Amino acid sequence: VVRRDVVRLVTPGTITEEALLQPGRGNHLAALTRLGGKGRNAEFALAWTDLSTGTFLLSATTAERMEADLAAIEPSEVIVADPLYRDEAFAPLFRRLGRRARPEPQPLFDAATAASRIAAFFEVGALDGFGDFSRAELSAAAALIAYLGKTQLAARPALRRPERRLAGETMEIDPATRASLELQRSVHGGRKGSLLSVIDRTRSGVGGRLLASRLSSPLTDPRAIGERQASVSHFVEAAGLREEIRRRLGAVPDIERALSRLALDRGGPRDLLAIRAGLEGAAEIAGILGADLPAELAGCTDALRALPGELTETLRMMLGEEAPLLKRDGGFVREGAIRELDEARTLREDARRFVAELQGRLVEETGIRALKIKHNNVLGFFVEMNETHGKALMAGEGSHQFIHRQTLASAMRFTTRELAELQERIVNSGEDALRIELRVFDELSAAAVRQAEALQAASSALGAIDVAASLAELAVSQDWSRPRVDDSLAFRIDGGRHPVVEAALAEAQGHSFVANDCDLSPPGRQADAGAIWLVTGPNMGGKSTFLRQNALIAILAQIGAYVPARSAHIGVVDRLFSRVGASDELAEGRSTFMVEMVETAAILNQSGERALVVLDEIGRGTATYDGLSIAFAAVEHLHEVNRCRSLFATHFHEMTALSDRLERLSNVTMRVKEWRGDVVFLHEVGPGAADRSYGIQVAKLAGLPKSVVMRAKAVLAELERHDQRDSRGMFLDDLPLFSAAVRRAEEAETRAEPDPVAE
Amino acid sequence: VVRRDVVRLVTPGTITEEALLQPGRGNHLAALTRLGGKGRNAEFALAWTDLSTGTFLLSATTAERMEADLAAIEPSEVIVADPLYRDEAFAPLFRRLGRRARPEPQPLFDAATAASRIAAFFEVGALDGFGDFSRAELSAAAALIAYLGKTQLAARPALRRPERRLAGETMEIDPATRASLELQRSVHGGRKGSLLSVIDRTRSGVGGRLLASRLSSPLTDPRAIGERQASVSHFVEAAGLREEIRRRLGAVPDIERALSRLALDRGGPRDLLAIRAGLEGAAEIAGILGADLPAELAGCTDALRALPGELTETLRMMLGEEAPLLKRDGGFVREGAIRELDEARTLREDARRFVAELQGRLVEETGIRALKIKHNNVLGFFVEMNETHGKALMAGEGSHQFIHRQTLASAMRFTTRELAELQERIVNSGEDALRIELRVFDELSAAAVRQAEALQAASSALGAIDVAASLAELAVSQDWSRPRVDDSLAFRIDGGRHPVVEAALAEAQGHSFVANDCDLSPPGRQADAGAIWLVTGPNMGGKSTFLRQNALIAILAQIGAYVPARSAHIGVVDRLFSRVGASDELAEGRSTFMVEMVETAAILNQSGERALVVLDEIGRGTATYDGLSIAFAAVEHLHEVNRCRSLFATHFHEMTALSDRLERLSNVTMRVKEWRGDVVFLHEVGPGAADRSYGIQVAKLAGLPKSVVMRAKAVLAELERHDQRDSRGMFLDDLPLFSAAVRRAEEAETRAEPDPVAE
Repeated sequence: VVRRDVVRLVTPGTITEEALLQPGRGNHLAALTRLGGKGRNAEFALAWTDLSTGTFLLSATTAERMEADLAAIEPSEVIVADPLYRDEAFAPLFRRLGRRARPEPQPLFDAATAASRIAAFFEVGALDGFGDFSRAELSAAAALIAYLGKTQLAARPALRRPERRLAGETMEIDPATRASLELQRSVHGGRKGSLLSVIDRTRSGVGGRLLASRLSSPLTDPRAIGERQASVSHFVEAAGLREEIRRRLGAVPDIERALSRLALDRGGPRDLLAIRAGLEGAAEIAGILGADLPAELAGCTDALRALPGELTETLRMMLGEEAPLLKRDGGFVREGAIRELDEARTLREDARRFVAELQGRLVEETGIRALKIKHNNVLGFFVEMNETHGKALMAGEGSHQFIHRQTLASAMRFTTRELAELQERIVNSGEDALRIELRVFDELSAAAVRQAEALQAASSALGAIDVAASLAELAVSQDWSRPRVDDSLAFRIDGGRHPVVEAALAEAQGHSFVANDCDLSPPGRQADAGAIWLVTGPNMGGKSTFLRQNALIAILAQIGAYVPARSAHIGVVDRLFSRVGASDELAEGRSTFMVEMVETAAILNQSGERALVVLDEIGRGTATYDGLSIAFAAVEHLHEVNRCRSLFATHFHEMTALSDRLERLSNVTMRVKEWRGDVVFLHEVGPGAADRSYGIQVAKLAGLPKSVVMRAKAVLAELERHDQRDSRGMFLDDLPLFSAAVRRAEEAETRAEPDPVAE
Repeated sequence: VVRRDVVRLVTPGTITEEALLQPGRGNHLAALTRLGGKGRNAEFALAWTDLSTGTFLLSATTAERMEADLAAIEPSEVIVADPLYRDEAFAPLFRRLGRRARPEPQPLFDAATAASRIAAFFEVGALDGFGDFSRAELSAAAALIAYLGKTQLAARPALRRPERRLAGETMEIDPATRASLELQRSVHGGRKGSLLSVIDRTRSGVGGRLLASRLSSPLTDPRAIGERQASVSHFVEAAGLREEIRRRLGAVPDIERALSRLALDRGGPRDLLAIRAGLEGAAEIAGILGADLPAELAGCTDALRALPGELTETLRMMLGEEAPLLKRDGGFVREGAIRELDEARTLREDARRFVAELQGRLVEETGIRALKIKHNNVLGFFVEMNETHGKALMAGEGSHQFIHRQTLASAMRFTTRELAELQERIVNSGEDALRIELRVFDELSAAAVRQAEALQAASSALGAIDVAASLAELAVSQDWSRPRVDDSLAFRIDGGRHPVVEAALAEAQGHSFVANDCDLSPPGRQADAGAIWLVTGPNMGGKSTFLRQNALIAILAQIGAYVPARSAHIGVVDRLFSRVGASDELAEGRSTFMVEMVETAAILNQSGERALVVLDEIGRGTATYDGLSIAFAAVEHLHEVNRCRSLFATHFHEMTALSDRLERLSNVTMRVKEWRGDVVFLHEVGPGAADRSYGIQVAKLAGLPKSVVMRAKAVLAELERHDQRDSRGMFLDDLPLFSAAVRRAEEAETRAEPDPVAE
């Protein structure tokens, strides 16, 4: 009976097996902590790691942005202290996280012992050398480490030193915006059709993971963005270099994942080969990149050059060209590397040859032609013959030489002194050889793990090179341009395109994408805030695509990529809201309209002057006048209070009159041409307001019965005839200014009553 | 070196491993075929199987209903002949199926050889005994069998005889309706929050699968529905019987999945135990059910009583109480079952005891206290001691007794003649025992597979009993009632509730669900068609819930379940359309509005008088008048042309005027109470039309900034003041009748031009 100890607990966030992971996708385990109780003093922090690569990051968060931060991390598993998990205030969040959230006992998160527990894990005396962390961050990090201890038991993962992410460093993007823009996955849930799938030209797993992680967290610092752009530009300009580097990146194995498996004692000989090939590839790539590089790439080559040459040498010296998956299968140490091993192998081979010769000799001696030497795991080598021969042998003088071992229905099995000796030599020399190989494996594995920091740094460097080269490849092949990104409030896109829709059109041959401009920069010299574009136009005219493409261009610009536009100038966006397309959440007890209003409220309450707001058709799903009134007031609020750059699409043509009252608001429309009574959608954005939506034309295209189309036309004509006076905007004349409403709301706030709606 | 032959190809549709399947969920592999080429003569058929249970079904289909049929089957994998897969006309379908669709070579589908290939698989001369199948059905079935041959290689799955499903037998429900009603999964993709999750009280895997399969394909034959209802009623009335049966069902293992693994040679001893326990449980259940049963349950007990008693006896006689997962671990055959086996086991135990004694004796003889007898897989048993002792022994007289086997760094290993003999006895007797057990396993397994038909029939019977008992449990615990289902066009629900929302409210304590009536029966004696209810009312008033609950009640009634209502009378629905809640499919190049129009077109073009149509807010997402005109014309078309029972919710209050013109249309509204200026949603449906939607109140609830709420109120007041004359319905006076539009459309159709829209 073999006693099997539990060696690890498998959980979704702690998987490292290659077969269960996707090369280009991280697998994150996060810990969420709260210090200071439920009240106003509550302090929240997140720690997260990708056990398969060793990444280890910390960040403060708040009750409000927690869900957005988690959406950026996309964890497979989030551990949460039990009391927080059971706090009713966070029940909706944990319900949405579902089985990914896992409550753990509070002591894992204990803040008092956190620093010392982290120091103990990294085997340092104090954390001073690691940087400056808040108590909450330390609590989250310590909980993560404790949870790893609990699940990984004996093994110690090769975690990197914790790094801190500051909240303001990245663009805040809430989960609804991520879903609506289909950044990492399409609305259908798959990767296909997402922005990531269209821009990902990386050649390595680490590059793919880095691109996905950058896309989920665009930067807000123009200098940092500029550094990444410089790397991309370097590869845009040097086409030959780019191709050469990309060719080689494709052949470099995933060093950090191999290393991680070795550290967790789940590795095999192939992981050592991967590290050797990675080291060799890294050195080559550093050589090809040469000198005179922009800062980020220069840092990368430094990391590659800092790789320990002795480790490469040792691995080259000790390992052959191929290796089995499991170390216990042996045969991976190179011939000539270790004399003892070579000897053991020679002994084994000799003995095997002797066994083969022995069969011939025994056949000759006994005259039994059917005599065979066979092998199984129970008896080892044995001589087999049928029962008749066997019995004859035992009765005769063969009994001296042949020792009976087993009788089966169909055969008898024997050994001989010589065969037993050979067997023993084979077993002993095989065991000797394996013992030596296992020792070598352990030594090499330890040597690699000792160099974890250098290897991980090199892996990250390869990832960054891959991302830069692949974004350059994308820019060149798709004719993208380098955007100007600065601290202004500009937002000017010339000839912008939607990368995913453009790619889909290119696949369906014969369709080309119509590029469109967008300018939300403060209009005129006096303006001190961004502009609002009110977009009207027919259904199927391309409004949604236009809205989304501008949000996507902002994201691409701020991850340091080139953008699908002739030119672009973007003052950094610190927060992005996009609501294009509706989804119904009836199961959570909210109607479509309620969901839309909750989201609109969040946008109006939270957007600052650096935000970019993209809203599509606020006010559908209720009575016409209710919807119009709400949309109207929302635009005024964006203009007067939020003062942020905004795109606002609507079918309420009445709203276009607002341009007379709000100086930073302009009307644009999706152009159409009427031609012999049919409508041609030009997909062009131009100044002006639409007066029709052509809904009935779309209905006809969609295949509505002809009688219905004709009837709808007749009804529309009647409606328009009865509504002859062009009332659009007329009612505005009697409305007081928006500022009066703001003032009254503030007064109501101070008095706390009477309720302005109840009045 | 062990040579491993490929024994199967693992594909999503051919998995049978327990760990990879969910007990209550089927795993279907389907084949889709087309005969007769692309033209009008094309004939389509589907065949599908659940390899883990042996189900094997065939059905004709058409290009139009193919997607609905596939949605009902929910296959993990669909094989399609290559030319069909590459037909552009079906590209959207296969794109939506994604990786589940798998093209296979045309010859698999060859119709000429199909019948004989199927006959060969079932080892019959001809298929006459199986029923009457079309050529297309045979082609699909033969392709499925060929694909199983290709993936399962040697093993022959225990498929049941193919059964034919007729297209008209089940309610047609398109994929969008399934998604919108959250039948099997919620909009979030999980099972939680779905109708199935709320109604599933089954106790067995087979019952869970049967319930899911019934829910996906409600019946249309009142007689068949009545039979199922009678089973449920039987258990509703006999509470004690229901509890007893359910308790026992929970303990019956999954016979058909165990059998399926045995047939595919992937089974183990536990599968035999499962079949034994299943046989015993089935006999008990048949006994408890007794006589005097409704037809369906009587058929079930017949199937249970027809189980072969000798198989139970044999399994009882041969197998112990527990068994290992793998047969090669042995130990599952009961002591006393086979004398030879008992002897071999005794021999092995004796020898083991002797080995244990031997160590004591050798310590005594040699005086080496650290001497140990150990075992490993290479050497078998050996004597181990440290080198000093070992060398001393070899130098002294011990060399006669101790035969050296191996020297390690830390120890020397020996054998003795006695130990070698004992070792041989243990090995031989162990091998003998295992050989006998494996033979017994094969015999028992073959015996079970020979009884496949009876076992599968019994398993199905247990499933049907479980479904009936669990629906009864549900009906009693939730206070549901038995609906009257017949061939009329009635649709009258008294006190209907939404089962999922009600369950969610019950979980959040203190909320109770407000029941509502619905009556779409032909109004008055003269009426020869169903009625339309036009539902207006405020946002958050419960419109969507009301709409959906009536569709769900129709489905529940037609699967033979009780329904969440005080009483219900439903004339069978042959086709259900439900569009509640929107979703955006921009990636496929369609706007939200376009998607809505395409779906509306399908409904208006396809609904017959037995359809049930549930539409929510047609005409959002375009200009107000366009949307209103389309909604208007669509309702007229439903009333005059489709003449089917319909629920139509809208925020266009202007439409309520239609009740004056359309005799089978009534207005109903979600009641609200205004109280001190606030709005209370009563969630009650009553006759009449709403004049307000209270959108701004909802916006306030959603947390819109106070200034925005106040401003929206002011804008609304202005809009209403400018719109003083109550124009609602006035324009109708000048409209000609709808029938004129139909006539004109028909004329246009004949003339084929001029286009009515282009006019």
